[in-house]
Amino acid sequence: MWINLGRHILWLACWLGLSGASLAQDADWRPVEPENLLLIKTVYGQVAVELNPVFAPNHTKRLQGLAKAHFYDGLSFYRVIDGFVAQGGRNEGDLPDWPVLKNENDRPAKGLNFVPTGSPDLYAPEAGHVGGFAAARNPKTGRAWLMHCVGSMAMARDTDPDTGDVEFYIVIGPGTRYLDRNLTIFGRVIDGMEFIQKLNRGTRAIDNGVIADPARRDPIMSMRLASELPAAERPAYEVMRVDGQAFADYKTAKRVRDAAFFYRRPPEVIEACNVQAPVRRAVGDDGAP
Amino acid sequence: MWINLGRHILWLACWLGLSGASLAQDADWRPVEPENLLLIKTVYGQVAVELNPVFAPNHTKRLQGLAKAHFYDGLSFYRVIDGFVAQGGRNEGDLPDWPVLKNENDRPAKGLNFVPTGSPDLYAPEAGHVGGFAAARNPKTGRAWLMHCVGSMAMARDTDPDTGDVEFYIVIGPGTRYLDRNLTIFGRVIDGMEFIQKLNRGTRAIDNGVIADPARRDPIMSMRLASELPAAERPAYEVMRVDGQAFADYKTAKRVRDAAFFYRRPPEVIEACNVQAPVRRAVGDDGAP
Repeated sequence: MWINLGRHILWLACWLGLSGASLAQDADWRPVEPENLLLIKTVYGQVAVELNPVFAPNHTKRLQGLAKAHFYDGLSFYRVIDGFVAQGGRNEGDLPDWPVLKNENDRPAKGLNFVPTGSPDLYAPEAGHVGGFAAARNPKTGRAWLMHCVGSMAMARDTDPDTGDVEFYIVIGPGTRYLDRNLTIFGRVIDGMEFIQKLNRGTRAIDNGVIADPARRDPIMSMRLASELPAAERPAYEVMRVDGQAFADYKTAKRVRDAAFFYRRPPEVIEACNVQAPVRRAVGDDGAP
Repeated sequence: MWINLGRHILWLACWLGLSGASLAQDADWRPVEPENLLLIKTVYGQVAVELNPVFAPNHTKRLQGLAKAHFYDGLSFYRVIDGFVAQGGRNEGDLPDWPVLKNENDRPAKGLNFVPTGSPDLYAPEAGHVGGFAAARNPKTGRAWLMHCVGSMAMARDTDPDTGDVEFYIVIGPGTRYLDRNLTIFGRVIDGMEFIQKLNRGTRAIDNGVIADPARRDPIMSMRLASELPAAERPAYEVMRVDGQAFADYKTAKRVRDAAFFYRRPPEVIEACNVQAPVRRAVGDDGAP
């Protein structure tokens, strides 16, 4: 029991979380389209984001356009608040050559393959997943929207809801659900979130998180679409389908913790943000970048 | 409007969160006792943890003893899973010269100055704060316990709940509340959480997060109690009292988002983990370390 204690600790908790993913069949997965796969190169490593044209078609097009124009290359994460957001993609004061976008904070629920978690949610009438993303739904209004989770990528804006253009933020801490339906989420980090967590922070109390010293601002070395890369350099990801048995099993394992480790059985609750669809590198992907 | 757009974005969201803290009077704050102030030196910077003898008296004593013995110095964060925990404080296979502890997962609610959030909670009948820490309470059983939040520091263990001894973990992501009442939380990070977030990660799917290459394991350079340091080198922190008006105002500002920025008013909900008591450096503290 003592040998390798370190490896045992919380092992069960992890194993339960992963078993669904590792046992899933190929039919349980869908590829991430290369034109929706945004690759952000940081000094710490490469971050992969899946764009979401279903909820945010115009923001997705904007990001595709910005990536193709190499707009972000050399800009920085200049406002980073621990436990909140990493924001970047503009030099302060710059008026970019890209017009403002109408917000895409929510959309009709109709036509979406919305898979409810079956658990209650503190911020929405119904919580679930659409295409791997944590989403919420209001049956009364018939609207659906993406949730602010750790890893959500969204467009920053001014007070007017239709003023987003190029500047983005990535959520790096819990407790941002109050931003739901107020800002437009257009993607989620599916790999390399640990590199976003390594970004240098600013001080919230002094400069509202803006990093005063430009030398401490971590650069966006490049931001590219996988579709723009030579085929040999493209990473390829797959996301678990949320309407299949594999994902149902995954959620059950997260909800029902019946291993001996849990001598006090936790409440059978899951939160959509914390059980987003598992992601894997596709077979044959050499993981070059 | 366009000038300094970057600084404006989400400004209101932040300001609302901070206004309570910055307006609070000195009477609204309590000092962190130097013997309960654990300082963890990492290669990225110093992390400050407040120990909690009210909920975990024996674990607090253990940590004080380990710190005084310089037990952790030179050990590492050897198992780090992004969005989950940073675990360390033991070399694999080592049987330390410190006996196992009985768990202190929960305690009688009686005698605690428990301040409810007033918001519902998904995992407990009642959520609130005790001495700055997020805590839960069950009126039926008369028990109270600390919540697993980002920044919670707890004792790792084997399957038997009374097998913790020296190895700890710090929560670095949301979604760990299911560990409540199963593992013993003995502290919370009150400063330098950004340095914990910078720790190198392992791969959950391959080695259950254990970092195979020892060179990639970030060391615990030292772990000390502030009370052990010469007075001139001691950082001094203050935590907002949770039973006063300042903290009530702080929570209201987080719960009621009525600034123009929120053109769609968010649900009036707060989560205890996301509104733990604000922390500040004490006046006269030169912030030496």
